[in-house]
Amino acid sequence: MFIGQVRIAAFSSANRGLHYGDGLFETMRVHGGQLPLWPRHLARLREGARRLGIDVPNVDFIEARIAAHVAGIDTGVLKLLLTRGDGGRGYAPPVEALPAWQLALHPLPAIPAALRLHMCATRLAIQPALAGIKHCNRLEQVLARAEVERAGCDEGLMLDGEGRVASATAANLLVHRDGRWWTPAVERCGVAGVVRGWLLEQGLVGVADVSMDDIDAVDALALCNAVRGILPVAALGARAWPAHPAVTDLQARLAMTYPMFQDTVVSA
Amino acid sequence: MFIGQVRIAAFSSANRGLHYGDGLFETMRVHGGQLPLWPRHLARLREGARRLGIDVPNVDFIEARIAAHVAGIDTGVLKLLLTRGDGGRGYAPPVEALPAWQLALHPLPAIPAALRLHMCATRLAIQPALAGIKHCNRLEQVLARAEVERAGCDEGLMLDGEGRVASATAANLLVHRDGRWWTPAVERCGVAGVVRGWLLEQGLVGVADVSMDDIDAVDALALCNAVRGILPVAALGARAWPAHPAVTDLQARLAMTYPMFQDTVVSA
Repeated sequence: MFIGQVRIAAFSSANRGLHYGDGLFETMRVHGGQLPLWPRHLARLREGARRLGIDVPNVDFIEARIAAHVAGIDTGVLKLLLTRGDGGRGYAPPVEALPAWQLALHPLPAIPAALRLHMCATRLAIQPALAGIKHCNRLEQVLARAEVERAGCDEGLMLDGEGRVASATAANLLVHRDGRWWTPAVERCGVAGVVRGWLLEQGLVGVADVSMDDIDAVDALALCNAVRGILPVAALGARAWPAHPAVTDLQARLAMTYPMFQDTVVSA
Repeated sequence: MFIGQVRIAAFSSANRGLHYGDGLFETMRVHGGQLPLWPRHLARLREGARRLGIDVPNVDFIEARIAAHVAGIDTGVLKLLLTRGDGGRGYAPPVEALPAWQLALHPLPAIPAALRLHMCATRLAIQPALAGIKHCNRLEQVLARAEVERAGCDEGLMLDGEGRVASATAANLLVHRDGRWWTPAVERCGVAGVVRGWLLEQGLVGVADVSMDDIDAVDALALCNAVRGILPVAALGARAWPAHPAVTDLQARLAMTYPMFQDTVVSA
């Protein structure tokens, strides 16, 4: 079994992540010297590696390095990047590629109490072969996030290539209608977020197609991801939503299982 | 004006090419110590940089480094990789990102006289925001090329997300029907190849939608790119095409302007 290397300083200039985005990543919240959502991140990483045909380095070794990285860290964000490794001028993935990976610790970003969203012109292409996994082909998100910056907003809502509402640039979308929470599918595009996965498993959220007409009609909107938990959306362009108790309820349920998200629970 | 750096040894582990495929590249044939197609590669690089919002480093400096790289090289392939540079854990492109680029010289690959194509299951997603430019989000091509390797073929034919014939994994498609050459559009997906661009400008090829039914009916099929010029397709799965004088004619016309492609002209 391959023993992974933690390359802190640099990747080779022949790394396929650099040339083709040929890799996967996980962005994980650190809390009290641990990664409470690690099993879910690992499951998604394994699924991505299976679909891209990348070997996952020895997990015990990765976990030991993660433990060393986050020991004594009360709060932060740990990013795990796994690339296929070096190889070849062409697209063909080398059969014997040695995966290269790294861990990088970042401070926890500021977490606003509610989000103002920009409606992004950049769409997420329909691509079932890459949907759901957290791969490194992220130019759509880079372009969409540049739009968000120009608009001076907190995040951006993205449609898929067929006009359905898909997700935010770095978070899954939750919409509240008819007394229930819903989130778009991730089989055509988007990422299967780990908090989204937990919410679905708990039966707190269901999967449904969401149109822009739906967005205008819903009584609450929220985003979720593994760094910020669940955050309410206050506005999308000219449409504003007041605080809604359904958001607070969902935040509180998440914080019961994952106390690191306690600080984002807002009173409605 | 930014003076580009040629980073031969390594990129920073924070390089956005590595994390998001946030970059562009050009793969260029070296001939007699020069890059005969350089002006076309540079034009595509500039267009890609404009669309992604990446600064192009000083072109005089790049050209001087290219000249130093290819001086005395009779034949080969030079790859130029331009990334947005380092920055940020998130998708937002840093306003002050300093682009990082590199040049790498590779041997000219073996060029077969005719190609056997695999019909790829992996499709090219419809994404007008990224179509045409040679960006580094290439997982679709990596997955498709892995299919080609498993099938033991030379290249692969890819459909777009809506079932039209799009291109090969690393070459544009040319189909001959009704006495004329045609190639699919690159406004929905695919790359605007430099040889394809030359053929269109010369009026030797026109743009048309191509369906799989068309493929079965055409009397000749060829692929083109900047490394191998124009090569005939001998077979796609069970469908085979005999040598056709229209391919030889097109190869000869290309070789008149770009003699480096003379060696790929086959007699029909």
